[in-house]
Amino acid sequence: MGAVAERLIVVGGDAAGMAAASQARRRRDRAELEIVAFERGHFTSYSACGIPYWISDVVPERDQLIARDPETFRNSFDIDVRLRHEVTGIDLDRREVIARDLDGDREVREPFDTLMYAAGAVPIKPDWARTPVNGVFGMQTLDDGAALRDWLDAEPAPREAVVVGGGYIGVELAEALVQRGLTVTLIEQADTPMSTVDADMGQLVADAMRDVGIRIRAGVRVTGLDERDGRVAAVLTAEGPIPADVVVLGLGVRPNVALAEAAGLPLGPSGAIRVDRRMRVPGVDGVWAAGDCVESLHRVSGLPVHVPLGTHANKQGRVAGINIGGGYAAFPGVIGTAVTKVCDLEVGRTGLRERDAAAAGFEFVSVVAESTNRAGYFPGARKMTVKLIAERPSGRLLGAQIVGWSEAAKRIDTLAVALWNGMTVDDMTGLDLGYAPPYAPVWDPVLIAARKAVEALAAATRD
Amino acid sequence: MGAVAERLIVVGGDAAGMAAASQARRRRDRAELEIVAFERGHFTSYSACGIPYWISDVVPERDQLIARDPETFRNSFDIDVRLRHEVTGIDLDRREVIARDLDGDREVREPFDTLMYAAGAVPIKPDWARTPVNGVFGMQTLDDGAALRDWLDAEPAPREAVVVGGGYIGVELAEALVQRGLTVTLIEQADTPMSTVDADMGQLVADAMRDVGIRIRAGVRVTGLDERDGRVAAVLTAEGPIPADVVVLGLGVRPNVALAEAAGLPLGPSGAIRVDRRMRVPGVDGVWAAGDCVESLHRVSGLPVHVPLGTHANKQGRVAGINIGGGYAAFPGVIGTAVTKVCDLEVGRTGLRERDAAAAGFEFVSVVAESTNRAGYFPGARKMTVKLIAERPSGRLLGAQIVGWSEAAKRIDTLAVALWNGMTVDDMTGLDLGYAPPYAPVWDPVLIAARKAVEALAAATRD
Repeated sequence: MGAVAERLIVVGGDAAGMAAASQARRRRDRAELEIVAFERGHFTSYSACGIPYWISDVVPERDQLIARDPETFRNSFDIDVRLRHEVTGIDLDRREVIARDLDGDREVREPFDTLMYAAGAVPIKPDWARTPVNGVFGMQTLDDGAALRDWLDAEPAPREAVVVGGGYIGVELAEALVQRGLTVTLIEQADTPMSTVDADMGQLVADAMRDVGIRIRAGVRVTGLDERDGRVAAVLTAEGPIPADVVVLGLGVRPNVALAEAAGLPLGPSGAIRVDRRMRVPGVDGVWAAGDCVESLHRVSGLPVHVPLGTHANKQGRVAGINIGGGYAAFPGVIGTAVTKVCDLEVGRTGLRERDAAAAGFEFVSVVAESTNRAGYFPGARKMTVKLIAERPSGRLLGAQIVGWSEAAKRIDTLAVALWNGMTVDDMTGLDLGYAPPYAPVWDPVLIAARKAVEALAAATRD
Repeated sequence: MGAVAERLIVVGGDAAGMAAASQARRRRDRAELEIVAFERGHFTSYSACGIPYWISDVVPERDQLIARDPETFRNSFDIDVRLRHEVTGIDLDRREVIARDLDGDREVREPFDTLMYAAGAVPIKPDWARTPVNGVFGMQTLDDGAALRDWLDAEPAPREAVVVGGGYIGVELAEALVQRGLTVTLIEQADTPMSTVDADMGQLVADAMRDVGIRIRAGVRVTGLDERDGRVAAVLTAEGPIPADVVVLGLGVRPNVALAEAAGLPLGPSGAIRVDRRMRVPGVDGVWAAGDCVESLHRVSGLPVHVPLGTHANKQGRVAGINIGGGYAAFPGVIGTAVTKVCDLEVGRTGLRERDAAAAGFEFVSVVAESTNRAGYFPGARKMTVKLIAERPSGRLLGAQIVGWSEAAKRIDTLAVALWNGMTVDDMTGLDLGYAPPYAPVWDPVLIAARKAVEALAAATRD
């Protein structure tokens, strides 16, 4: 008689959880490791970041967003995926997970040796959004996306949309709704939308949004919703009502830690679950966590941060799975790289914004350099704005932002790798970057910005 | 009476020479430093890399390629630019430059305190190309470009073009001539064109060239030219003649060091002029050199290399000028980054190719990873092929190549910065790169390639 297999239970069947499950399976087969994954929704491993593009019909089919469906996990990976099962409790003493089968409406208890907590994040909801109103949508899961699409397709077809919140999701949804022909107002509490970049760069994004017809109401606080005939009719603000027959909430997310907290898993200062480099929950034997529910080390500030993003979830899940499978892998932390687009305008950021650098106690200079994505004389050359933030007096790069058209956003990666390696802006002026007229001026925008930062540092030192 | 100004003579009025002159002027005014620049051609500071796009009419006007004209240098920088003056001798003992005024046909001698040698490069010409033939063009200067354009516009309009040499210039010219409606054959002595990348990646380029109708004759040696009625009629090869009424030579360049050698300036093992980090010619007082005539340290191989490229010429000229002006600057070396496009196909490379790595004595693994430039489900997603070469067993990145469509080429910069900083492929798997569906799959192509390289290293270690 062979040994009894160990048992891994995965809480949350999206990027982090299923990446962990797959990697663990690659290293340990069914005879060694039984894997059960609970997912409260209808889907596994889909691209949440792709939802705005499905809403806009740029991506026409929902299933295009699904990276791997439950059948693939079941059949090819021998993972017992249980959809529509909401985990309601984790009993660390008895080493059991309690889950509710939402369709069968019954409770199941499953024992585990190893637990992978990947419950993701939940949308932030202010008081006024707590009571469900027809026509008001969060936008986090594929189920949320499906609900919004159904509402947009139903009669009477909504015509006036209000998006509350100008972060990535808000901005991308505003674009999607404009593309579907709706009148769109974006409400942002801060002075500019896209507060993931500094206000001067956010202003460029706001201008581009206005150019495609999005109305921006910045510095406006939402106070409530107005309902008529069982449907949303307006968003109420401190400055008066804004009519709406569809409302999308993009107010950000917080780590989904209720179960973890109840079970006694340690939370960090960011409010997300603490993990070590291997994605182990410290002090709790056999429990791992990854994805939008954990906090990560910010390599520039040295502080723990909560950065819910699919790219980290996938990496962290993979790391956890390799370790659960008996290998060795470590997650090295984040530097806050992100890219997005608003219609044709592209936005990239990495590292610290000015406010982050100040909060972390850095002294710094910041410069904004305008250049072009191609040689100035080359057809299609468009303005590219690069902002650099550098520690003074050391010159170490702390953060960078790019706003521009056509092939601008992904150039943030060049700066991200420089930042990752602790380069100074002076070092960066010598970087050997690719040059050809269709792709860059002979002085690359990154080099121009680095030179400008060196000059600003010298001027700041003279002062 | 004030002190007599020092005198800087610049040999060669293109990127390196004029960057040096401008930077020196920024730091020292006319009362301190008199600057004379000799240029044998008709232009200063133009984009040689842009010539193929002027040939194709993508850039319609010649003057769009001129970054700064002689009047600007004269009036705004107080630099005595003398066009059509070919320097014929440098007398280091008497500290004089001898030049020939090509239009006036007279010799001038000018004394200098400081000499900036920036004579650039000259096209490589095999024996069969030494005698001028009507309809056969080198392609290095703006004057060369003008001559080719005149030939293409004249009657009888040429219809069959042969490009000899499949490097950057050859490939870009082949594309330009196809775009002008000519039938184009590219002859390349090696097995694939674009030997600036490894043959497996060059094959992808060759396929794309064939797709736009360029005939490729690889592994073919040219033996001569056939002339009829005072015009070129065919290119003769070891495999028979190829009819041609216009021939473009793209056989590369060598450093233009004849004058330097005659004056006793030291040449390095690459055949180009030796310089130190500040672009000073070692052992020769007050003489500086920069641009296509000097050799540079390759930061990966540690060897001196000759890499004639505008981006280095500009950086080196700037460094020399800052130093001549009394400041401090150093050129940190090159890593061989380059990008180009062949119709819509984009090609990027950095670091060592397999053959370079082997020649430099490295043991290495190389991997080729196929991915996409956008999320696989996003409209416009196209294949992107990333090749990585990593030292074994250390895992240090030695070189990288990218071939793909739409936003592929400049992603080489991400790898260039990783290489610049001596990252291992294992480190690279954790890089925080920008992710959004329009710009990358959730696993960026760079990360996928790095993971594959880690696996290859592990497999190589097990063997």
